[in-house]
Amino acid sequence: MRNKLVKKRSSKAGLPPGTLVHIGERHREAARVSIIVYDENNITDQASDNLAACATMRGQPGVRWINVEGIHSIELLQKLGECYGLHPLVLEDILNTDQRPKREDYGDYLFIVLRMLSLKSGGEGVASEQMSLILGPDFVISFQEGLAGDPFDPIRERLHTSRGKIRSLGADYLVYSLMDAIVDNYFAILESVAERIERLEEELVDNPSRETVGRLHTLKREIIFLRKSIWPLREVISGLERRESSLVREETVIYLRDVYDHTVQIIDTVETFRDILSGLLDIYLSTISNRTNEVMKVLTIIATLFMPLTFIAGLYGMNFRYMPELNWHWGYPAVLFLMLVIAGGMLKFFRGKNWI
Amino acid sequence: MRNKLVKKRSSKAGLPPGTLVHIGERHREAARVSIIVYDENNITDQASDNLAACATMRGQPGVRWINVEGIHSIELLQKLGECYGLHPLVLEDILNTDQRPKREDYGDYLFIVLRMLSLKSGGEGVASEQMSLILGPDFVISFQEGLAGDPFDPIRERLHTSRGKIRSLGADYLVYSLMDAIVDNYFAILESVAERIERLEEELVDNPSRETVGRLHTLKREIIFLRKSIWPLREVISGLERRESSLVREETVIYLRDVYDHTVQIIDTVETFRDILSGLLDIYLSTISNRTNEVMKVLTIIATLFMPLTFIAGLYGMNFRYMPELNWHWGYPAVLFLMLVIAGGMLKFFRGKNWI
Amino acid sequence: MRNKLVKKRSSKAGLPPGTLVHIGERHREAARVSIIVYDENNITDQASDNLAACATMRGQPGVRWINVEGIHSIELLQKLGECYGLHPLVLEDILNTDQRPKREDYGDYLFIVLRMLSLKSGGEGVASEQMSLILGPDFVISFQEGLAGDPFDPIRERLHTSRGKIRSLGADYLVYSLMDAIVDNYFAILESVAERIERLEEELVDNPSRETVGRLHTLKREIIFLRKSIWPLREVISGLERRESSLVREETVIYLRDVYDHTVQIIDTVETFRDILSGLLDIYLSTISNRTNEVMKVLTIIATLFMPLTFIAGLYGMNFRYMPELNWHWGYPAVLFLMLVIAGGMLKFFRGKNWI
Amino acid sequence: MRNKLVKKRSSKAGLPPGTLVHIGERHREAARVSIIVYDENNITDQASDNLAACATMRGQPGVRWINVEGIHSIELLQKLGECYGLHPLVLEDILNTDQRPKREDYGDYLFIVLRMLSLKSGGEGVASEQMSLILGPDFVISFQEGLAGDPFDPIRERLHTSRGKIRSLGADYLVYSLMDAIVDNYFAILESVAERIERLEEELVDNPSRETVGRLHTLKREIIFLRKSIWPLREVISGLERRESSLVREETVIYLRDVYDHTVQIIDTVETFRDILSGLLDIYLSTISNRTNEVMKVLTIIATLFMPLTFIAGLYGMNFRYMPELNWHWGYPAVLFLMLVIAGGMLKFFRGKNWI
Amino acid sequence: MRNKLVKKRSSKAGLPPGTLVHIGERHREAARVSIIVYDENNITDQASDNLAACATMRGQPGVRWINVEGIHSIELLQKLGECYGLHPLVLEDILNTDQRPKREDYGDYLFIVLRMLSLKSGGEGVASEQMSLILGPDFVISFQEGLAGDPFDPIRERLHTSRGKIRSLGADYLVYSLMDAIVDNYFAILESVAERIERLEEELVDNPSRETVGRLHTLKREIIFLRKSIWPLREVISGLERRESSLVREETVIYLRDVYDHTVQIIDTVETFRDILSGLLDIYLSTISNRTNEVMKVLTIIATLFMPLTFIAGLYGMNFRYMPELNWHWGYPAVLFLMLVIAGGMLKFFRGKNWI
Repeated sequence: MRNKLVKKRSSKAGLPPGTLVHIGERHREAARVSIIVYDENNITDQASDNLAACATMRGQPGVRWINVEGIHSIELLQKLGECYGLHPLVLEDILNTDQRPKREDYGDYLFIVLRMLSLKSGGEGVASEQMSLILGPDFVISFQEGLAGDPFDPIRERLHTSRGKIRSLGADYLVYSLMDAIVDNYFAILESVAERIERLEEELVDNPSRETVGRLHTLKREIIFLRKSIWPLREVISGLERRESSLVREETVIYLRDVYDHTVQIIDTVETFRDILSGLLDIYLSTISNRTNEVMKVLTIIATLFMPLTFIAGLYGMNFRYMPELNWHWGYPAVLFLMLVIAGGMLKFFRGKNWI
Repeated sequence: MRNKLVKKRSSKAGLPPGTLVHIGERHREAARVSIIVYDENNITDQASDNLAACATMRGQPGVRWINVEGIHSIELLQKLGECYGLHPLVLEDILNTDQRPKREDYGDYLFIVLRMLSLKSGGEGVASEQMSLILGPDFVISFQEGLAGDPFDPIRERLHTSRGKIRSLGADYLVYSLMDAIVDNYFAILESVAERIERLEEELVDNPSRETVGRLHTLKREIIFLRKSIWPLREVISGLERRESSLVREETVIYLRDVYDHTVQIIDTVETFRDILSGLLDIYLSTISNRTNEVMKVLTIIATLFMPLTFIAGLYGMNFRYMPELNWHWGYPAVLFLMLVIAGGMLKFFRGKNWI
Repeated sequence: MRNKLVKKRSSKAGLPPGTLVHIGERHREAARVSIIVYDENNITDQASDNLAACATMRGQPGVRWINVEGIHSIELLQKLGECYGLHPLVLEDILNTDQRPKREDYGDYLFIVLRMLSLKSGGEGVASEQMSLILGPDFVISFQEGLAGDPFDPIRERLHTSRGKIRSLGADYLVYSLMDAIVDNYFAILESVAERIERLEEELVDNPSRETVGRLHTLKREIIFLRKSIWPLREVISGLERRESSLVREETVIYLRDVYDHTVQIIDTVETFRDILSGLLDIYLSTISNRTNEVMKVLTIIATLFMPLTFIAGLYGMNFRYMPELNWHWGYPAVLFLMLVIAGGMLKFFRGKNWI
Repeated sequence: MRNKLVKKRSSKAGLPPGTLVHIGERHREAARVSIIVYDENNITDQASDNLAACATMRGQPGVRWINVEGIHSIELLQKLGECYGLHPLVLEDILNTDQRPKREDYGDYLFIVLRMLSLKSGGEGVASEQMSLILGPDFVISFQEGLAGDPFDPIRERLHTSRGKIRSLGADYLVYSLMDAIVDNYFAILESVAERIERLEEELVDNPSRETVGRLHTLKREIIFLRKSIWPLREVISGLERRESSLVREETVIYLRDVYDHTVQIIDTVETFRDILSGLLDIYLSTISNRTNEVMKVLTIIATLFMPLTFIAGLYGMNFRYMPELNWHWGYPAVLFLMLVIAGGMLKFFRGKNWI
Repeated sequence: MRNKLVKKRSSKAGLPPGTLVHIGERHREAARVSIIVYDENNITDQASDNLAACATMRGQPGVRWINVEGIHSIELLQKLGECYGLHPLVLEDILNTDQRPKREDYGDYLFIVLRMLSLKSGGEGVASEQMSLILGPDFVISFQEGLAGDPFDPIRERLHTSRGKIRSLGADYLVYSLMDAIVDNYFAILESVAERIERLEEELVDNPSRETVGRLHTLKREIIFLRKSIWPLREVISGLERRESSLVREETVIYLRDVYDHTVQIIDTVETFRDILSGLLDIYLSTISNRTNEVMKVLTIIATLFMPLTFIAGLYGMNFRYMPELNWHWGYPAVLFLMLVIAGGMLKFFRGKNWI
């Protein structure tokens, strides 16, 4: 099924800014919260109800990563918002799940919105999910809409097993890792789309059918959709890389540049897809024109061959009393010969026109 | 009915700048003025004839919001202009209802023009209305053309009931609220357009008719129209957000950034619509070509099948005296058999060409 | 008649810069010069032969406006050039009537080129005329090519009758007024073009004919032409508004901003026209395809219906001696019945394909 | 004949930078060198073998202009290079005759590359030649490929006859004059192209044939080619005008601005050509569609008219023994009448569809 | 065979940054390393196992150039990385062979990625290979994927034979030489593509077939591919030329400007190709339409000529007992004459329509 062009948002019209209303589909029953606190030496998974003890937690050493799956619990959001001093507009944006990627600096923390893409279960079609990230001096909060499949599992594992950079560098490196995981995921999407484009290319050359156009249009729409999701990411990351906020440390910049590079490469590829797809429709059209032309030729050849012959046959089928030819002894063979000559002439004419 | 491409403006040619002539349709009989004065503690609705007592009012504390519906009363406009020291060019622009969105800084006050969109009564088609806003240090004047439906009702309500930010923050926050209400309204328009595009997409795949192209063109025109109305808004708001005028306070910036975000998102969506629509026409064209091709095939198959057969039948319908075949006992069955063989060969040829 | 794509200019190749050769058509016999000198209190129309007394005039108080209609008098131009110290390149540009709008700062004076548009007498088609303006500290010289119709009449009248801003503000305000008059004139052109586009739109939907494409192309060409004439104006005026030259006074800026606004609005509209026109051709093409498809269907239905029937009739028109069916008593009705069955089947097939 | 898309350059791959290899066609047998030395009072044509005495010449007063026609003499180039201290890369670029216009500052001298265009002898088609200019403090060296026709003749004449600016202003003014001559030449090219476009427009409306498309494509290619040759010139001249090099004197700037203006105007015109040409193909396509539609109508009318009639005739040509109608006395006239009724009905149907 | 749209990269998703996994095809069995150390006076080819003695080598005078062909040996890469202090992200990028051209400054060294293009063995189609360059103060490391053919052979030779600039200028000049060799190679690619375009142009005019569209699409794809490979190069080189890194010496800038020029010229040419190709499809479409039109005309002429005649013949083939014409003595000649008149009329009608 195709993605909706816009999400129903008009229900919010007229409400004051910062009113928390969830816009989008509810993907899972209950929201799931996981909290990981780590520094170079220690790492602990904390119970999610620890959220209550927010105030006492804030002064503790180490980096705290709170991952929320399923954002429709407004209560939970408000609790988090109070605890970490998030602006109501931030909470509102987290709930409006049709944001375009953006980066907003609220001084104490950065608010980053990304779009997480995944292949739909049927294999074709791309689903999109909003991923909101809050980067504070010593904490990261990530909000997923809660579609199946979590791209953050490898990061969780790396946090637990290795003691590498991800443990020693701070919260900004964690945010980088999360963004990198999301962007890495885009490559899988691109591969799947590329495969479908290539299949379509072959189909167009070998055996275009009516469904081909439909499929082409669906692909085009998906690519428009991909573009819209990925294009603004470029500016988001380049802003981080330029260290416009002091929350991003010098050491992380080099890694952000790497994600930036990947993003540019992905955008490049999406543009290439666009170019190729727009060419495909032209090819489809010219293939159809070509076929019509071919069909027409067959028709014309047959008609041009048999119409004169049928006319001659009709001529000698007339019942006039005085038709001298009819009584000639060689009349019939002569007419047959005439017909052969005419047919031969026609065929020669067609060959001259390169039609056969 | 479609929107006119341009409004009749030529009647003004040659008049000196600042001449007040109303350009556009007159939407209601009498202009309606409502005045609300409020501060953190008090709020009063004032009688509209209080306008006369302009001079005495100007020094009073609190924020004054004057909302004018129906702008064709030039007299009223002049009174307001004198009282608040508005430049004649501002009044002229308020009356010329085909302005594009803009923001002009007159030092003492900001002059902002927006376009308010609403769905036409029939459900299809978008009507556009000019909304002019004047932001002074302690007053806001808003001018609507006066189409049915007032998007400011929720704001009025919030002013009366709550004592939140809208009451404590100043005139600039009120202007933000008005702009936010207008932009929020755009989402409803987009939803309606998206629905129509999706219906058109289905129609094109299932059963395109001649009216489809007409509808497609109408949609395209509306989107061109939407684009023209919304695109310049981006710069208008970004200028406010950058606090180019001191009339915008620090606290309001964060809210303006929010509206800015919405505007960018809306522009993005309109661009997506454009891309999709332009693809639709191509699909329509190729569907038609496809159909013609199919029709041609049926014709060709029939003609190719029956023309040779008819010719043979005609051949033996000739009246030559000496046609030995006619007297053969098995002549008739032999000819029938020959015809069957020819028809079979033709069908095989068509199957080879994948036509049947 | 269409406008020429380029004006014959090659005749000038090889001449040194500043050589005065008139390029363009000569619109009137003799050049007409009018001189108005005014300040806040007095205004006088001076005889045009006063040009001779140039030197004595230059020190006089007030603003002098010299309007020249018909620029082919090279002698006149040279006299003016000497008197006001105009650079030979300026005079050359005034004579080359295919300049694009531009603004050049010569220190003592500004040289501004605009294009004045007017509807051709037949009602359709846009004629273009070069308008050159010289703005000095206390004088304005305007050069028209001298087509019929003078957009400056209202300004002359305002100068004579009112004592408003146009009399008290200086030469720069007069230049603004002239430019405003020209830009205001564009709106009338746009209205006429819009009307023609709307008529074309209706024609395309109702009853497109072969001439429609020709008309479409003519309109497209005119819009390309309009664009080329208007687009650079934007930068010309924005440079004046930014006061890049000290000849523009602070008080005039606000008025220039107004013309600038109008220009942007006009450009916007021209772009809209372009978008709509380019859509129209697609609609025309798909309408034609649709029609061909319809014609084809009629042909196919008829052929498919009658070819098999004609074949059967031909079959029983054969003259074989032994054709048992011919002698059956119910042979004829049976064949008629068979034909009916075949025709019915065909019609059902067409209905299944939605062709009838 | 069409221009080649690229010049054979690969033969140079792998050679070190500064290797002198001539790329392009050799247009004349021997290179021709002319040297003119002039100041305000004197002017002399020097013998070309004076090149040898390079060292002694350099200190002399006045401006020296060395014009080289035919650049394939590598020896000559090397001599000049040594004498005037030209960088090997400059010499290399002079020999590679497919450079795009550019301006390079080597401190002591400026290196400017332009493309000189001329109409091919057949009248249709544009030939392009590389023109390299070296501007030193007191010398100018110009390199032409040596196609027939020299646009510098008028300049040479002006140098000899007049004592105007060209003699008093320095080497930079001479370079300006050369560039102006080349740009002036472009106008002639544009005029010729415009004429061909206009002829094509008429042909398309009146009587498009198969060759029309070919001609359209050739024109399109030429315009792509023109664009590529002229577009970069804009930046070249604007850099000179901004006096990025001290070799350009204050007095020359005003003249450079004039050439700049011409260049912008030419680019504008080329863009207009592009727009118009791209519209022409659409018109051609729709004309063809229209024609096919018309042909189809004729065919359909004829077939629809005669197929039913032929069928009826065939029906009564059957040889069944018992066909009561055949024996009726009024059978024949009745059938003729029936046929007339059918034909009339068909014609009415066509008229209803607006086909006849 | 066509190039894949994207390389399989998703296998890397989830791995930490800096993990070394080779992405791409393995072009040769074992990696080949060559080391050249040179200064103005000496040059030595070192054994490749010298890599082990890395530490001792670093202080030596002269420039060291390490060329690695075949990058799949991760061990080798790691050794080089340790020895020259390369960042893990650099090594990762070297292994990911679908990078777009880029330039990254790591302080001590510059990391440059280019794409090396070569014609596929079949003659048609362009293969692309990633070329990574590391520029340190006194060393250059180049990594090739290891496709057949080495564009660096001429450079190696020049190093050994000449004692020119390449020996005296430092490591940055060597990097310039390598980049120049790669860019020079592009010209050969362009020539081959240009040739194929020109062949296609001729084919389209003379004898377009169904395969033509396929070939056109393949060419289009290749040009999209070329563009993607070359376009970013422009910025890479312009950054070097602006000496953003101190590793680039003043003396080399002039040479970098030369490569920059070549790159711009190549991009220009690729854009020209794009423009021409997009025009070609339109021509193909209109040629097909034209042909269909012609075929239709033949069919229509034949049908219109013979259908009425066949009808008349059928009419007099009817078996009515009372058909007076049949018994007229001149009936048969009269009918023949009537037929001639009708055929003549039809032919005249066609000639009037310009169909024959």
